[in-house]
Amino acid sequence: MTKDSTSPWRKKLHDIIYEADTPAGKLFDVVLLILILASIALVMLESVKSIDARFHDYFEIGEWIITIFFTLEYFARIVTIKKPSTYIFSFYGLIDFFSTIPQYLAFFFIGSNALLTVRALRLLRVFRILKITRYVGESNKLSRALKDSRAKISIFLFAVLILCIIAGTIMYMVEGEESGFTSIPVSVYWCIVTLTTVGFGDIAPVTPLGQFIAALIMILGYGIIAVPTGIVSAEYAKDMEPSKVTIDGEDYVHMNTQCCQNCNAKKHRDDAEFCHKCGNSLDRDF
Amino acid sequence: MTKDSTSPWRKKLHDIIYEADTPAGKLFDVVLLILILASIALVMLESVKSIDARFHDYFEIGEWIITIFFTLEYFARIVTIKKPSTYIFSFYGLIDFFSTIPQYLAFFFIGSNALLTVRALRLLRVFRILKITRYVGESNKLSRALKDSRAKISIFLFAVLILCIIAGTIMYMVEGEESGFTSIPVSVYWCIVTLTTVGFGDIAPVTPLGQFIAALIMILGYGIIAVPTGIVSAEYAKDMEPSKVTIDGEDYVHMNTQCCQNCNAKKHRDDAEFCHKCGNSLDRDF
Amino acid sequence: MTKDSTSPWRKKLHDIIYEADTPAGKLFDVVLLILILASIALVMLESVKSIDARFHDYFEIGEWIITIFFTLEYFARIVTIKKPSTYIFSFYGLIDFFSTIPQYLAFFFIGSNALLTVRALRLLRVFRILKITRYVGESNKLSRALKDSRAKISIFLFAVLILCIIAGTIMYMVEGEESGFTSIPVSVYWCIVTLTTVGFGDIAPVTPLGQFIAALIMILGYGIIAVPTGIVSAEYAKDMEPSKVTIDGEDYVHMNTQCCQNCNAKKHRDDAEFCHKCGNSLDRDF
Amino acid sequence: MTKDSTSPWRKKLHDIIYEADTPAGKLFDVVLLILILASIALVMLESVKSIDARFHDYFEIGEWIITIFFTLEYFARIVTIKKPSTYIFSFYGLIDFFSTIPQYLAFFFIGSNALLTVRALRLLRVFRILKITRYVGESNKLSRALKDSRAKISIFLFAVLILCIIAGTIMYMVEGEESGFTSIPVSVYWCIVTLTTVGFGDIAPVTPLGQFIAALIMILGYGIIAVPTGIVSAEYAKDMEPSKVTIDGEDYVHMNTQCCQNCNAKKHRDDAEFCHKCGNSLDRDF
Repeated sequence: MTKDSTSPWRKKLHDIIYEADTPAGKLFDVVLLILILASIALVMLESVKSIDARFHDYFEIGEWIITIFFTLEYFARIVTIKKPSTYIFSFYGLIDFFSTIPQYLAFFFIGSNALLTVRALRLLRVFRILKITRYVGESNKLSRALKDSRAKISIFLFAVLILCIIAGTIMYMVEGEESGFTSIPVSVYWCIVTLTTVGFGDIAPVTPLGQFIAALIMILGYGIIAVPTGIVSAEYAKDMEPSKVTIDGEDYVHMNTQCCQNCNAKKHRDDAEFCHKCGNSLDRDF
Repeated sequence: MTKDSTSPWRKKLHDIIYEADTPAGKLFDVVLLILILASIALVMLESVKSIDARFHDYFEIGEWIITIFFTLEYFARIVTIKKPSTYIFSFYGLIDFFSTIPQYLAFFFIGSNALLTVRALRLLRVFRILKITRYVGESNKLSRALKDSRAKISIFLFAVLILCIIAGTIMYMVEGEESGFTSIPVSVYWCIVTLTTVGFGDIAPVTPLGQFIAALIMILGYGIIAVPTGIVSAEYAKDMEPSKVTIDGEDYVHMNTQCCQNCNAKKHRDDAEFCHKCGNSLDRDF
Repeated sequence: MTKDSTSPWRKKLHDIIYEADTPAGKLFDVVLLILILASIALVMLESVKSIDARFHDYFEIGEWIITIFFTLEYFARIVTIKKPSTYIFSFYGLIDFFSTIPQYLAFFFIGSNALLTVRALRLLRVFRILKITRYVGESNKLSRALKDSRAKISIFLFAVLILCIIAGTIMYMVEGEESGFTSIPVSVYWCIVTLTTVGFGDIAPVTPLGQFIAALIMILGYGIIAVPTGIVSAEYAKDMEPSKVTIDGEDYVHMNTQCCQNCNAKKHRDDAEFCHKCGNSLDRDF
Repeated sequence: MTKDSTSPWRKKLHDIIYEADTPAGKLFDVVLLILILASIALVMLESVKSIDARFHDYFEIGEWIITIFFTLEYFARIVTIKKPSTYIFSFYGLIDFFSTIPQYLAFFFIGSNALLTVRALRLLRVFRILKITRYVGESNKLSRALKDSRAKISIFLFAVLILCIIAGTIMYMVEGEESGFTSIPVSVYWCIVTLTTVGFGDIAPVTPLGQFIAALIMILGYGIIAVPTGIVSAEYAKDMEPSKVTIDGEDYVHMNTQCCQNCNAKKHRDDAEFCHKCGNSLDRDF
């Protein structure tokens, strides 16, 4: 609410880069999104030998154009923010840095091609543009449900892992090396492939006993695949529905005691995201 | 409700073609359904070399009979409707056109065989006959639940795609070309195959590190497969159940303010499909 | 309730064969169960060449012992029931007949080995013994939930099939015969294998465009696998929970107007399986 | 509450080994956890030929250090407990014994390498350290939901197995030995692999009829995979939510008659984990 005494152009640039409310800000976000996608496409196409052989020079030029734009964007972000360190060491600040630097490194040290991969992380910035859409509300609920069920899913996956180590060791003993179960780690890998119902088939049991145990593992996996689903379903359903009741044909929805930070209005619905008086965001998670 | 002054035979033909309330209309729908299925069967069988070699001429004759019927049906639909453009440019109108024309094109231009595939879309018309069955009510609820959770599932699939691009790039670096991970797009394809638990096995990691990362991806996929399920489950459950409460041993079901288009009766149950006074359909989705 | 004037031994044999309340009846069921399992084991082991070569004569003798017992059981069931036709043409009566006759046919016509498979259906009779266990209550609820969601799942699977036909035709055009997509039916088969996330890998796309479409199909399959799960979950949850409400710290459960067939007691819980007055079964599904 | 007259050092050692409240107890648990993980890592790495060849002696030394520590721990547990038999014949007591003895057996009888696998079970002891974390509450709810739905899932898996036996026999007849369906047990194994959507691809149908039946099995599997998920989801959701109702805009949560063991306060929420008066744990499951 309080204005700061920065120069007007910095203020304006800040609004364009960090916000998406103005037309210029939206345009900036769209251009950024296109460049990110183009950048990802370049990295992917460069890895295809036949395509790279034909268009290598064009890719190189495109890469430099994108890199220079991202470099300018990076410095613009630093310049326009009041406390640069909050941006530089933020999640996106680090991604911006580490996804721009490889191209320069590659220029000086030929062969450091691997670092280019870091640029793939740039795509995560695509979520920024989603901030202005209704998707974010959903995504917040989703991530909240996931966060709530993280502990349960962790312990579940841990139990699955223990099961895989035990079953993998048994399969190693039963099938042996001639069936492809060359070591316990490989057997455990096979167990994970099987229990998650991926089933590559690069390794498969050939002895009757091995196939019998494999069938048991699969039946078990089929039975327990329900568990994480049930957890997330229940958590998500809990998160989604406000407590509502109907008496004498009229709806009553629970009003909580939350207080709007803007107009002090009280008694919002549990699932309210905006104040029903002033429309101010009630979001508590940011 | 208001009758229009079209000629009686056009009115009658219109009822036969566009409605399924009269015996003739039902017969028309059944004949159409059989011809559509026969048409699909022809397209499929023609593609099997050994069968086509033996019965090619019969297939060709059958194809022409079906095509001529569909052509007549197409023109009948145009003639009997008051505003032909509403049909011609509707979803089904376009399907009707583009699934009938290939046979004629193939007659003039030998070799344009590929266009025949468009006819497969004809099978979508099979849903028309379902209008008279209870299946539609269900299907509407289903599609409503899917529509409500579309935004959430889109953002989820988008997150999965980003994960696949990052993991695919890592696998490309780790496994390299000799394991079949010949380029980043191929690696991303492999990641999608793995994360969705399809697991063809045409490409599979062979290095210990690659297998370890693959195991992580699978465990992750196993954990997140629950998310879309949870979303649809919760949406569907929300859509299915009217808000109901029981006080002093008696049921109270929420009555909405919907008004029957036929008898003006109000206060229907949220899950009501027919007016409780006159039995008129309350369906709001068409 | 009314006794019939059959001879005492027929009455007694009837109780042993058709009921499981008496010790003799339970023993009969257990012996039957063991013989069924032994019979299945014989059929399976006989199909294993190396085992059959060594123990063929023992298998043959065991087979005849089981067949003679099942023959006696079949005639005992006919003799002891008042209206034999109700048994003979019932589901289990037909299974009993068609699972016993192949051995005799095989005796007269050497080589009619295939008919032996019908005996596998005998295992369905294993459910009879479950009648006395608590499992049946569960299984009834389960089958009720499945029956309720049958229409929805049918239309869903129908939509999946249409999708597979369209996608299969596209893959046939894109990949062609040299990739293993030798005809549209084979392509549709591949699509079903892929969309259900089975993924054998006997056929797999090799062209970039084919792999891209395959990835789309998989992502789609990943998104829609949630639908049947959501349907059954919601149906099952609906079926399981009685409508319950809590007022002033006390539970109120909805009492329906169902009337006990034995003692006429009314107002049972929605999830009641037995009368709260006389303990008589309230089950309405048999 | 009542102290026993054991010697002080045994009391102290008991607290360190059996409890995790004191710093020494926590340290003991952490050391134990590290040694267990190290032990598992050793077993796994030893099975990798190339690694074992290079570091065999180090592995042997590490193995002996761990074994000696576990031996000391085993005797310490016996000595410090009042009734050693309660520990020795407990689940963990037996695991401790059978996971320590193989190393000694291997020392005396070279070649009894297989017994080392039992040590994998040691990892189950890792759950002990979780007792002090919030994970246990979750895990208890989870295991309760699993226990409640065990009967339903058992009968479901039983039905799946019957389906697999029937379908496997049909596939054996249809495909025959040249397609890899060499016997009924192998066919049943293939059916389990397919129905659970694992799909190795080591065996795959090649005849059109076989592929058609396989497609039916997969579609069926796709439709019924929802069942165990629905069961666990519903059970879990039931277990998670306290019965709550809102009247006149105020929440009413069901208060049970549970009584706090510390302060005798009554009327706790169904989902309460701590007494609302004194903060004492209300956990009833230990």
